[in-house]
Amino acid sequence: MSASYTWSPIGTVHTDVPDEDVPRRRRDMLSTIVVDPRYEPGLAGVEAYSHLIVLFWMHRTPRPASLVHTPHGEPDQPARGTFALRSRNRPNPVGLAVVDLVAREGSRLIVRRLDAFDGTPVIDIKPYDYYDVFTDIRVPDWSNSARNRVRT
Amino acid sequence: MSASYTWSPIGTVHTDVPDEDVPRRRRDMLSTIVVDPRYEPGLAGVEAYSHLIVLFWMHRTPRPASLVHTPHGEPDQPARGTFALRSRNRPNPVGLAVVDLVAREGSRLIVRRLDAFDGTPVIDIKPYDYYDVFTDIRVPDWSNSARNRVRT
Repeated sequence: MSASYTWSPIGTVHTDVPDEDVPRRRRDMLSTIVVDPRYEPGLAGVEAYSHLIVLFWMHRTPRPASLVHTPHGEPDQPARGTFALRSRNRPNPVGLAVVDLVAREGSRLIVRRLDAFDGTPVIDIKPYDYYDVFTDIRVPDWSNSARNRVRT
Repeated sequence: MSASYTWSPIGTVHTDVPDEDVPRRRRDMLSTIVVDPRYEPGLAGVEAYSHLIVLFWMHRTPRPASLVHTPHGEPDQPARGTFALRSRNRPNPVGLAVVDLVAREGSRLIVRRLDAFDGTPVIDIKPYDYYDVFTDIRVPDWSNSARNRVRT
């Protein structure tokens, strides 16, 4: 368990949205993922997908992380473990967003709904496919109460 | 772009399924994620979710990765970029699976449908929630033809 692994960014997120506005604009904000030109061949065919999964490194998150938090925006809820939350504050600060691919311009991807700060290093981009879609899911009441719908 | 980042596993995948059987058994195989005991507090409340997203490091994948591949099981298709595929062969070999949480036993999570080899280091565990579910998606014909249904 004491092993460590190293990775290097494949690209960087650029957005005009200031850090402090990302939480409230996360559902419709536009960003550009600028992929390192040496990785551009890896984008071939990506425009056949409407949605992508973007994995990114939340580089401005303080470490070490706390393991329990009160759910964001739910101050009356008891604290929960970081693996039961989508908090930025986690042992490995990897963020995940399912985004709309709006356009591809060479090595640049214009995407909607990527809740990452300007300058965020990108770990990986994956196509979102039917095997990522599960509609009969159970979530806690406090989460369900705010988000109990499937968006299309 | 030349920066590099370091992370350490929060746990390890254990499964009786041999590596070579993982592809064909990926839809129903059972695995145990053994979380490092120091991170066990981070699991508090995770059992309120039916599905989890598991991020893992495909440590037995050769590097450096090729950037274009023929889609797995689709030899008649042209090669596509690794960011348009879910191939193991990618610059940062991070795997992603949406799994069923079958049971939690302290720091151990029994999960279904985690297509990771025995011994795989785990990067992160996140709850799968309604904001990860998009049903009106577009995928390439060659993918859609094999997987054109939403599973529940």
